[in-house]
Amino acid sequence: MIIMEAGATKEQVEHVVKEIKRFGLRADVSRGEFRTVIGLIGDERKIPFEHFAALPGVKEARMIETPYKLISQEYGKLFEGESEHRIVKVGDIEIGGDKPVFIAGPCAVESREQLLRIAEDAKRAGAHILRGGIFKPRSSVHSFQGLGSVGWQEAEEALAWLREAGERFDLAVVTEVRGETQVDLAAEYADILQIGSRNMYNQDLLIKVARTKKPVLFKRHFGAGIEEFLSFAEYIAAEGNKDIILCERGILPVGKGKSYTRYTLDLASVPTIQKETYLPIIVDPSHATGRRDLIFKMSCAAIAAGASGLMVEMHYNPAEALVDAQQAITPEELGDLISACQKIYQLIAPGRNKN
Amino acid sequence: MIIMEAGATKEQVEHVVKEIKRFGLRADVSRGEFRTVIGLIGDERKIPFEHFAALPGVKEARMIETPYKLISQEYGKLFEGESEHRIVKVGDIEIGGDKPVFIAGPCAVESREQLLRIAEDAKRAGAHILRGGIFKPRSSVHSFQGLGSVGWQEAEEALAWLREAGERFDLAVVTEVRGETQVDLAAEYADILQIGSRNMYNQDLLIKVARTKKPVLFKRHFGAGIEEFLSFAEYIAAEGNKDIILCERGILPVGKGKSYTRYTLDLASVPTIQKETYLPIIVDPSHATGRRDLIFKMSCAAIAAGASGLMVEMHYNPAEALVDAQQAITPEELGDLISACQKIYQLIAPGRNKN
Amino acid sequence: MIIMEAGATKEQVEHVVKEIKRFGLRADVSRGEFRTVIGLIGDERKIPFEHFAALPGVKEARMIETPYKLISQEYGKLFEGESEHRIVKVGDIEIGGDKPVFIAGPCAVESREQLLRIAEDAKRAGAHILRGGIFKPRSSVHSFQGLGSVGWQEAEEALAWLREAGERFDLAVVTEVRGETQVDLAAEYADILQIGSRNMYNQDLLIKVARTKKPVLFKRHFGAGIEEFLSFAEYIAAEGNKDIILCERGILPVGKGKSYTRYTLDLASVPTIQKETYLPIIVDPSHATGRRDLIFKMSCAAIAAGASGLMVEMHYNPAEALVDAQQAITPEELGDLISACQKIYQLIAPGRNKN
Amino acid sequence: MIIMEAGATKEQVEHVVKEIKRFGLRADVSRGEFRTVIGLIGDERKIPFEHFAALPGVKEARMIETPYKLISQEYGKLFEGESEHRIVKVGDIEIGGDKPVFIAGPCAVESREQLLRIAEDAKRAGAHILRGGIFKPRSSVHSFQGLGSVGWQEAEEALAWLREAGERFDLAVVTEVRGETQVDLAAEYADILQIGSRNMYNQDLLIKVARTKKPVLFKRHFGAGIEEFLSFAEYIAAEGNKDIILCERGILPVGKGKSYTRYTLDLASVPTIQKETYLPIIVDPSHATGRRDLIFKMSCAAIAAGASGLMVEMHYNPAEALVDAQQAITPEELGDLISACQKIYQLIAPGRNKN
Repeated sequence: MIIMEAGATKEQVEHVVKEIKRFGLRADVSRGEFRTVIGLIGDERKIPFEHFAALPGVKEARMIETPYKLISQEYGKLFEGESEHRIVKVGDIEIGGDKPVFIAGPCAVESREQLLRIAEDAKRAGAHILRGGIFKPRSSVHSFQGLGSVGWQEAEEALAWLREAGERFDLAVVTEVRGETQVDLAAEYADILQIGSRNMYNQDLLIKVARTKKPVLFKRHFGAGIEEFLSFAEYIAAEGNKDIILCERGILPVGKGKSYTRYTLDLASVPTIQKETYLPIIVDPSHATGRRDLIFKMSCAAIAAGASGLMVEMHYNPAEALVDAQQAITPEELGDLISACQKIYQLIAPGRNKN
Repeated sequence: MIIMEAGATKEQVEHVVKEIKRFGLRADVSRGEFRTVIGLIGDERKIPFEHFAALPGVKEARMIETPYKLISQEYGKLFEGESEHRIVKVGDIEIGGDKPVFIAGPCAVESREQLLRIAEDAKRAGAHILRGGIFKPRSSVHSFQGLGSVGWQEAEEALAWLREAGERFDLAVVTEVRGETQVDLAAEYADILQIGSRNMYNQDLLIKVARTKKPVLFKRHFGAGIEEFLSFAEYIAAEGNKDIILCERGILPVGKGKSYTRYTLDLASVPTIQKETYLPIIVDPSHATGRRDLIFKMSCAAIAAGASGLMVEMHYNPAEALVDAQQAITPEELGDLISACQKIYQLIAPGRNKN
Repeated sequence: MIIMEAGATKEQVEHVVKEIKRFGLRADVSRGEFRTVIGLIGDERKIPFEHFAALPGVKEARMIETPYKLISQEYGKLFEGESEHRIVKVGDIEIGGDKPVFIAGPCAVESREQLLRIAEDAKRAGAHILRGGIFKPRSSVHSFQGLGSVGWQEAEEALAWLREAGERFDLAVVTEVRGETQVDLAAEYADILQIGSRNMYNQDLLIKVARTKKPVLFKRHFGAGIEEFLSFAEYIAAEGNKDIILCERGILPVGKGKSYTRYTLDLASVPTIQKETYLPIIVDPSHATGRRDLIFKMSCAAIAAGASGLMVEMHYNPAEALVDAQQAITPEELGDLISACQKIYQLIAPGRNKN
Repeated sequence: MIIMEAGATKEQVEHVVKEIKRFGLRADVSRGEFRTVIGLIGDERKIPFEHFAALPGVKEARMIETPYKLISQEYGKLFEGESEHRIVKVGDIEIGGDKPVFIAGPCAVESREQLLRIAEDAKRAGAHILRGGIFKPRSSVHSFQGLGSVGWQEAEEALAWLREAGERFDLAVVTEVRGETQVDLAAEYADILQIGSRNMYNQDLLIKVARTKKPVLFKRHFGAGIEEFLSFAEYIAAEGNKDIILCERGILPVGKGKSYTRYTLDLASVPTIQKETYLPIIVDPSHATGRRDLIFKMSCAAIAAGASGLMVEMHYNPAEALVDAQQAITPEELGDLISACQKIYQLIAPGRNKN
């Protein structure tokens, strides 16, 4: 990490970047309000920090050992200024700000009518962002993979419905990209691109998505520890894209016998991650539990644990949904949930940046 | 399960019990306000239910398939009357009632002075029950095992301090029993006997503790699924002791790399278990996270998930504690935590018995 | 699944396929020695099997419930004829045949010299296939990602070295593809394409690789159960590519405390999978244990468990390797290992297809 | 650890022990062929090693950091002399010696006839030790808990059958103790006392069993890492009982979906543990897999991994067994298995103490 002096010139910064490349690494230039910080991408053990410390305009040059440097609290404090946490902005929606953000919508987009109706319901219930799956990762090749897998034309049509629904009801829209070839198309229509749990380790996809410069909703893999999760988020940051919204969505269950929930929602990951990085983190109780009757309580718990928002599957008629019908809630349930969560968020607000 | 008619006589009940024994099973007689229900302990496939259905005073006789029958919602509804949930009473403290219950105290009892001071602090902060470990399960034979392992006399002395501290500051007291030989002694002094996580599978200990008829604080093993946890709680219930307070305290972490918390706090187990059984469930965020700086948020989250109370390690000077110093909070932090949790409990109260 | 009569004509098969498409599913036509079987890809509940049973040339039409149908024993028995197991052929190498197959080579290709020298060593030690990583998945963006990530030209150069080394020492060659864009290039040079553990869930990559019609070395994800592993292998089979070599390489460790191995090698998966599918399965003890000093014993154990081969990292000077130095063995160690494994393979051969 | 000089007198050893007690720790005196080593039980940080180094007869005094000291390779090398591995002797049976040892028998003792017949079958198949469960740990209070749970008299009767069967067919006998009160009785009849998986953490039971001075068959808990497993074995060693036979029996499965085996057999634990301690380790493939059709291959694999023996459930009519019928093999299968395992054991013998 190279910290530039307050008055460092553009040329001095460029010189440092050139030197970093000369040693075989890449540079991440972060310009904060008061100073510029340059993160290093690659093996820092190759870098003679004393050489860099002596370059003109450099205030300090030192190694950071953690595998996630560019998204770490330590790095963020330098360029985010006073705040330790970054607010990811999507239009006038602020994720990580002083209000919780709610993402709602169907698991899979099925038709224009379905989507418009759900979008209207979501807006009325108080949601800010509309979700809708078009490229669906599925555990079985024999299951419905979303309209995106029917054909290229169907994919684009569905993306256009998503855009339309968002615009009509003043909701930002997010959709998942599952493979590299889908990224450019999806980026034309969506405000936020989602990388699903099963693709957390897919570094080529991460890089491709990062380069769109769109905000990225990045889900933890169900077999990943927190260090791994953040180390892969670093792949996105290393492309210069820090608009990363982390998402906890449950990890593999432990123990023998019947499974009562799909995954184990690891809510302690929320405050833990908030101490490690400056990125906002939200929670998806729908995929975590897979049970409609647990969504309300686990949503309240997620917000009480400090989450900046929730991503919830909602359908006007859950039983009718083509995918994951058993975990969607109704618009009325969504309204109740948002209302309770907002109260809890206010209640714990004073302690949010405390322990 | 044998459901007796409302007006069944004592003799009719006794006759059914005798018949059950004749088929090689044991009977659990639960007398509710309106009717008596008789649970079967053993392999129900050996029972000719049609024979029992025809006995005088019997309203209905049928098999329950789940491995935890005597603590199931289905069974509880019959004898607990209107309420689906049981309130475990310890003096005038109600666990599972309309207020959250807080258990606080040191990990290990170290001295009379330490304990009296912590008890006073706990009371002032709003706690209801004092905890203090005397027989400590430890992962290493080379670690301090609690005063109970120093000698029998030291064990009794420490138990007496616990009793004294509880009486002086009007707190109920709970302590863990680790081996069968400790049960009778501990039962003389403690209001509640705790069975720790590592002993969840120790069925001989469970039976011995159950027979004291004291309320039992029963912790989930960190490798146990919910079905196993409840199946072992059934060992306690099968001795006729239904005063069981379940406790979620974290399960094994998943994934590679650095561990940020000691265990993974599985908060979805709270509402899940509340749907399966009529027993109250509390949460121990101290052992689950092992991190003082996460206790506040995870306590709020536990209460928001519907827990009936918390068990928290507290010390006037955490750094000084002989055991688990890094996870104890201060009396002031306990006060803040209790206050926030009480507000959240009220907030979600209307939805507590909803989804 | 549609089983055709022995004498069914090409037209009759085509008609069935057309009918399948009419119902919105895809068809997998497998022509065995004695009969043709048609597997269905998609949701079989939409299919009126009685309609298909009545079509000309059809002997039997019925539903298969498992999520992996096209690779199942049941399906394989029909078209593989007498044998329950498929032999995947790469040149004159038979994987799944009556001799164990050994894949060896460096974790990462570093230079032409390194690779040629290791290839020569591998051949001399008795290996059949040369491995060499060019597109390396890594947990940290700051680590060396293989020559394939340096640039397109470097990637192709390294692939050419691999081809050259294979040809010079009469070894087939295998390399991993990490992203969709790398598949076509790698397929020009490699005999077998590997899909690494972290990409097991990457269905777009699986489809892309399957379509090259090259044999696929498909590794289990460290968080995947066997059902999931086979369900994703089905994505490859559904593209008409049954030349799948499954590979067990260790799953997430369980329990607290120090990790002595990188992963837990799940050797019971070997005979389990052999009972579920007709595909051959090999074992990678290098990534599973991450410890050079355990490779010999775990290789012997893998073969004793019934594995059809091994994939082992080897380097003439393990300490020098840029990636995973601590898990590579020397050429001499490889020779000893191959010799011991061949003896064990013969020893258990009579029981191979028994329990 | 205090290493005495070769010619240290008994008085000098006693003096060191007295000094250790003065500092609040306990001493483990291990007399080897050439020297005496004194291990410390308790917190070594309290010990002024320089003081001990200066005591008469002391050659060296230093701290060992690992939580398992008394069973470590480092400690064992000093008093076991040349060999790095201890042979546990039960009559003329040597566990950890140059032949593999086979323990076989029914899951649960059901009757005298059943046991005598199985003992005869086991002997004929080549087994050395007869197993038979009398105090059965079960996940459900509603399942058969073994004859030991029927009553005290039934327990003693079953133990006498076990003794009789062992004597008649020249087999040593092993049985599990589940609770502290069963230890003295079982020790009167059994040659080896088993501590089952679920009791691995039950330190009071471990101490009670260790004090009988009988060899202890100690099973790993299914949720325990290797460090924990060895740390609890240390509880036994700390009572002066080093006749510990470790047993790997499978750990919790990882991943979603159907379970094909009861547990995940962690065979890499075998060579790993052999590098950490001097104790012998055997494998129980019956409980690990829960599948009769996998026992042969997993037994071969266990021996190939270096195990010193196997513990296998056998029944003349598996389908008839009251407990775990699906995992018992027949006497004929046991004979085949023993024969194959003996060949593999010889094959890998030269490499046993190598990597």
